[in-house]
Amino acid sequence: MTITQAMPPGVVTSLGRRFTLSAQALDSSVTPNPVFRDWFAEQRRTNRYDVRRIPFAELVGWHFEDGSGNLVHDSGRFFSVEGLRVRTEWGGHGASWSQPIINQPEVGILGIVVKEFNGVLHCLMQAKMEPGNLDTVQLSPTVQATRSNYTGVHKGAPVHYIDYFKPPRVGSRVLFDSLQSEQGSWFLRKRNRNMVVEALGEVPEHEDFVWLTLGQIHQLLYENNVINMDARTVLSLIPTFADEGPSLHTTEHVLSWLTEVKATRELVQSSLPLAGVQGWERTDHEIRHSDGHHFSVIAASVSAANREVQRWTQPLLAPAEQGLAAFVVRRIGGVPHLLAQARSEAGVLDVAELGPTVQCQPGRALALPPERQPRYLDMVLSAPKSRMLYDTVQSEEGGRFHHAGNRYALVEVGDEFPVDVPEDFVWVTAGQLAGLLKHGNYLNIEARTLLTSLRAAWALGGAYAL
Amino acid sequence: MTITQAMPPGVVTSLGRRFTLSAQALDSSVTPNPVFRDWFAEQRRTNRYDVRRIPFAELVGWHFEDGSGNLVHDSGRFFSVEGLRVRTEWGGHGASWSQPIINQPEVGILGIVVKEFNGVLHCLMQAKMEPGNLDTVQLSPTVQATRSNYTGVHKGAPVHYIDYFKPPRVGSRVLFDSLQSEQGSWFLRKRNRNMVVEALGEVPEHEDFVWLTLGQIHQLLYENNVINMDARTVLSLIPTFADEGPSLHTTEHVLSWLTEVKATRELVQSSLPLAGVQGWERTDHEIRHSDGHHFSVIAASVSAANREVQRWTQPLLAPAEQGLAAFVVRRIGGVPHLLAQARSEAGVLDVAELGPTVQCQPGRALALPPERQPRYLDMVLSAPKSRMLYDTVQSEEGGRFHHAGNRYALVEVGDEFPVDVPEDFVWVTAGQLAGLLKHGNYLNIEARTLLTSLRAAWALGGAYAL
Repeated sequence: MTITQAMPPGVVTSLGRRFTLSAQALDSSVTPNPVFRDWFAEQRRTNRYDVRRIPFAELVGWHFEDGSGNLVHDSGRFFSVEGLRVRTEWGGHGASWSQPIINQPEVGILGIVVKEFNGVLHCLMQAKMEPGNLDTVQLSPTVQATRSNYTGVHKGAPVHYIDYFKPPRVGSRVLFDSLQSEQGSWFLRKRNRNMVVEALGEVPEHEDFVWLTLGQIHQLLYENNVINMDARTVLSLIPTFADEGPSLHTTEHVLSWLTEVKATRELVQSSLPLAGVQGWERTDHEIRHSDGHHFSVIAASVSAANREVQRWTQPLLAPAEQGLAAFVVRRIGGVPHLLAQARSEAGVLDVAELGPTVQCQPGRALALPPERQPRYLDMVLSAPKSRMLYDTVQSEEGGRFHHAGNRYALVEVGDEFPVDVPEDFVWVTAGQLAGLLKHGNYLNIEARTLLTSLRAAWALGGAYAL
Repeated sequence: MTITQAMPPGVVTSLGRRFTLSAQALDSSVTPNPVFRDWFAEQRRTNRYDVRRIPFAELVGWHFEDGSGNLVHDSGRFFSVEGLRVRTEWGGHGASWSQPIINQPEVGILGIVVKEFNGVLHCLMQAKMEPGNLDTVQLSPTVQATRSNYTGVHKGAPVHYIDYFKPPRVGSRVLFDSLQSEQGSWFLRKRNRNMVVEALGEVPEHEDFVWLTLGQIHQLLYENNVINMDARTVLSLIPTFADEGPSLHTTEHVLSWLTEVKATRELVQSSLPLAGVQGWERTDHEIRHSDGHHFSVIAASVSAANREVQRWTQPLLAPAEQGLAAFVVRRIGGVPHLLAQARSEAGVLDVAELGPTVQCQPGRALALPPERQPRYLDMVLSAPKSRMLYDTVQSEEGGRFHHAGNRYALVEVGDEFPVDVPEDFVWVTAGQLAGLLKHGNYLNIEARTLLTSLRAAWALGGAYAL
């Protein structure tokens, strides 16, 4: 490594101020709101594409491997659908099951280039269509590329702006950079590299890209299915700008609490051939759970205008229903705290990560006997509108998931909500979560979307503010 | 969780001062050095035990599983010896191999109780014999227990002082608490919970335990095979007390550098049946590599006086030779820095951790062609005595490893040593490493032993000091 990349001392503090200014800018001189609206409408209009479900037999370049039955790409690259057996035991309760899971060992790059215009930081966002997306085109980070993408294994078009993220990065400096997990119930130990870099000089323009302030992005987060999952997770790295006041617990205590969870929960994962997964059935068109819950694995044929390659087929994972992810937010000693839960998902890298207060598929959850339903689910489902700081539907990644919508909610509660909570839960501030996001595998992806949304709520203030 | 466990603000800062005072105490009023010497000599004298290598067929309670050939305990608990296939690729070089590996998914507790006597913090250390130890009895942490141990699965004696570490911990408060990795070449993703707790009241005495200051422990670290591995890793959590001055790189930059390594290195681990491991042969007495390097898996029969159970047999992993782990230490801008290497070991949880500058089996390494020998190995092996801040042989964990000695060295270099280093290396300060140790899986266990040794060198000053 060279030593010239070292960041000058003090830059982090001033960064917080610069991003605060950007969050306060609800419009932009570079891309005024009406200009953005026209551009985005045009992007959605012109980037039409056709996604059709097809039988597995019509997949091109993909096949079920002999013996294992794993669904793999002919090149052995990209990702595969395999089996996973999971055995858990904690708090006196054990469970074990097997399921299909996506194995994508490559680490991709999700990165946003930022640059100051007229003294205000702007984020370079891309209009990107993905086959599984709800509402066709969404705004993605500047770069959203698997390693196969950006090293050219798939022989597609070059990835725009990738040089701002790959060494030697002569045109940029790194502001935030960490590996973050993705859906643990659907991916085996999957992470992507989340980066924010600042461009040091002129940045060439491209018709599919647009400069937006954080304030503009925050407003778009109040619409359904505009800011895509990959953008939301990268944005979560940019620290909160609020002066918070003291947290209920020290960060050391939160880490010790999570260490306790990891040390005492048993979570044993073992890889299985997909053909060996029990309780799931494979038809010509899908692999589904026998009770119809959870998700199914399907195949799709896609034709598109401006993606890296023009026409392709691929497997997608289709959730059985819209999910719910909600944080309870409460002031403690005057300081807003989020109630996080230690979640152990099937494909998690390291036993447990902090997730939202409630995260489930509500249809399935409500079908469970009352004592097995997720804690606080009732409360969230019955919360009046006046309590909702945030409540929108956002899609998960459209490159792997088909119409995977989640309702994301921030529910404000008052002093009637007890500070003492069950041992799987912990109160944390947004600032503490920002500190943990300097490291990987502390916050799951749903929690990261909600953290980004909470900052939007705070920045937009008024009716939204706490 | 209850909120009464929160640590009062400011306690961390004052903790540093309190441990500094303990490091400066080279003798103790509770356990004067001569008293310790007598007690320890007596422990080594009376806790004799007999360890014999036996053929696998004489193992009691262990068997090679039908089909897989894995070496497992009849209960399915404790640990097993399985196979692992590893494929790596980075920097244009690829490698792949398979090997036996120990799979022990349980997280144990390694914990030290500390308490003030006459204003000086003391650590409660245990004289513990373990079957694979060099020099019989060594000093271990207060608690060194697998989950099977402390939950009673093995039907042994209760674990002394375990209640200081298990919730609700009414008699203690947690000072340091994180999951830390163990030997990545020998263990599959193994971690133990490393804890330091402060006792809040009187602590009952026990003849196998003794109170020592950090200063006393530091002196013992200059002897071979006295402070065991588990004690060394727990001690590494206690932050350095030196006012360091500015580091060459910000910690954000170090994290970004490690993220780059994790994102670009390919390390694919897949479990194998032990019977499917190639290049290894199983005889009646051992499983060994065909070239005689690396390690072998053996079986041992043990009779002992004061361990949890009186007599047992078990598998052990026996390294083929004494290892070497060395940090290069150099002042940069007047501030001591360690040259860390990003090491990807076979069983690592998350692609790479920071390891010492050089870590290898020197016999095997020197047999390689020059271009494949570890960087800086020559320099360390030829360093004059006057450059050695620290140079002792310490054993790795005697419960799993048979006579696993490593030479641990800290080599001081001057300004002639270039600050610019290859991309797999990074300069870090002891304070930065202490910060990373609040989290798991940043420093490998050899680096943690050396960090503990470096603090000993600094605390003891004089001829040892930088």
